[in-house]
Amino acid sequence: MNGEYCSVDEAAIPITDVGFIHADAAYDVVSASRGYIFRLQDHLQRFERSCHSFRLRNPYSAAQTSAILVRLAQLAGTREAYIWWCVTRGAMPEGRERGNPEAYQNCFYAFAIPYLFIADDAMRSRGLDLMVSRQYIRIPGRAVDPAAKNFHWMDMKLALFEARDRGGDFAVLCDADGYLTEAPGANIFLVEAGTIVTPDDGCLEGITRRTTLELAAELGLPARVEPVAAERLRSADEAFITSTAGGIMPVRSVDGVPLGAGGPGTETVRLHNLYWDKRWRGWLGTPVEFRC
Amino acid sequence: MNGEYCSVDEAAIPITDVGFIHADAAYDVVSASRGYIFRLQDHLQRFERSCHSFRLRNPYSAAQTSAILVRLAQLAGTREAYIWWCVTRGAMPEGRERGNPEAYQNCFYAFAIPYLFIADDAMRSRGLDLMVSRQYIRIPGRAVDPAAKNFHWMDMKLALFEARDRGGDFAVLCDADGYLTEAPGANIFLVEAGTIVTPDDGCLEGITRRTTLELAAELGLPARVEPVAAERLRSADEAFITSTAGGIMPVRSVDGVPLGAGGPGTETVRLHNLYWDKRWRGWLGTPVEFRC
Ligand SMILES: Cc1ncc(COP(=O)(O)O)c(C=O)c1O
Ligand SMILES: Cc1ncc(COP(=O)(O)O)c(C=O)c1O
Repeated sequence: MNGEYCSVDEAAIPITDVGFIHADAAYDVVSASRGYIFRLQDHLQRFERSCHSFRLRNPYSAAQTSAILVRLAQLAGTREAYIWWCVTRGAMPEGRERGNPEAYQNCFYAFAIPYLFIADDAMRSRGLDLMVSRQYIRIPGRAVDPAAKNFHWMDMKLALFEARDRGGDFAVLCDADGYLTEAPGANIFLVEAGTIVTPDDGCLEGITRRTTLELAAELGLPARVEPVAAERLRSADEAFITSTAGGIMPVRSVDGVPLGAGGPGTETVRLHNLYWDKRWRGWLGTPVEFRC
Repeated sequence: MNGEYCSVDEAAIPITDVGFIHADAAYDVVSASRGYIFRLQDHLQRFERSCHSFRLRNPYSAAQTSAILVRLAQLAGTREAYIWWCVTRGAMPEGRERGNPEAYQNCFYAFAIPYLFIADDAMRSRGLDLMVSRQYIRIPGRAVDPAAKNFHWMDMKLALFEARDRGGDFAVLCDADGYLTEAPGANIFLVEAGTIVTPDDGCLEGITRRTTLELAAELGLPARVEPVAAERLRSADEAFITSTAGGIMPVRSVDGVPLGAGGPGTETVRLHNLYWDKRWRGWLGTPVEFRC
């Protein structure tokens, strides 16, 4: 918290920080597996881009930020970690200065907790029951850029609740024209006749999404990044979602209709296994040193 | 903070509350002038509607909430107060329960500070230089309902910064079709040939907006609530914005072009004066008792 370390239960944000009252912040998340933080530099670069989009300045350099995140993982004392950080715009200046981004003192906050999957073990092994939201669309980029990681989640939270009401366990949101964007905290992929497909726009450029495209190339699977009408998801052979918080997570049904054979798909499982095999071996990892 | 009173400088939100990390909250603001809180019941009713839209439950009844807000004003010790409160969804439950709104323990937070105007004295007496945002649209209702008061402000914050870059002091945002919605923290009105006009959709149903429509009726000014294309603002005779944080605030120019004679307009000033005359006399006010 602004340069001090404490227990996550004590960590708290001043109530008047506009990062709270106006969701005026950028954030990012990395994970550690077997003591290796995955693609830390890529996350740091994306974070700087998110800050830039929102005219926020990280008070720390990338090197300092990196050191803080590693230190947090050490202090948390877990090799399987979820490490979250943000820059908020800070307290509101007076009068006309409210319109001047330079007049704010931006603040840095971060925490590390044990690793979490957005879909639990049971959901991942059977495959998720996904619902395409009927009630909500994803916030469009002309309002708040979804490629800059931010706190504007109400559309995704309400779509998640809607999915559960309809008997599903996870949601995916479309844009105003009915094209798929992303899931609450995850990117969406489909597999159509051996090709993996993911939306090109209206979503975060997930690091797990990028990793999945690289793994697909390694497995010789063709991939396409393009606008994807929601109907294509319902008739896909397989589907999965990707997130730092869970990796590659299979979908078994969409809007109540099973995909393919109805469990995690073949290509999904191959990608999933390759992802964890490589991560467990420290692939693209920054080691966290634990001293006793 | 969850039932305790403290100094606003000590008030802080747990970092893992999704009210912070996911802007997953509803809020409202009342103001006190000369010791009277304005339209407290109307704000409380709107707040309950906002909570309902987002599937949040206020842990306090309306009567309890009202008592807390009055108590905050007393403790703050100012007759001119800005009193803010919210309900956040609280800490994230485990696994699949994340999709169940019933599994969250919603939290209540509030603070009172000296009254603030979103436009300072100098800006209000000369009239605001308003810019219609070119870069940002307001978050559409199909993504996050703007009629439910919420923390999703990035579109409005960035439009405000853009306005200042272009030499203005305040912004107004359109929807995807070029119709006016609202300003950062305020509703927008124009005066066209003696009729006051305000958008019907894409915005918060401001209590000051409603009050303005009632005052217009009292002054015999015709009013229309309808879709308003942005061009109409540029050619209006007068314009003003309305907010709990500042009342009725005149606009003198739009996109660098003066409106009418170029200062606060005649009807705007009449509405402004009537608003404060009535408020100073305790109109629709809940008295705050101060004991020494
Ligand atoms: C909205 C959204 N989309 C997609 C993702 C997936 O991105 P990443 O793979 O970088 O975690 C996230 C992050 O968890 C997210 O918050
Ligand atoms: C987005 C937005 N629009 C309009 C308003 C004006 O509403 P009210 O007059 O109830 O304060 C506010 C509140 O301050 C607001 O946050």
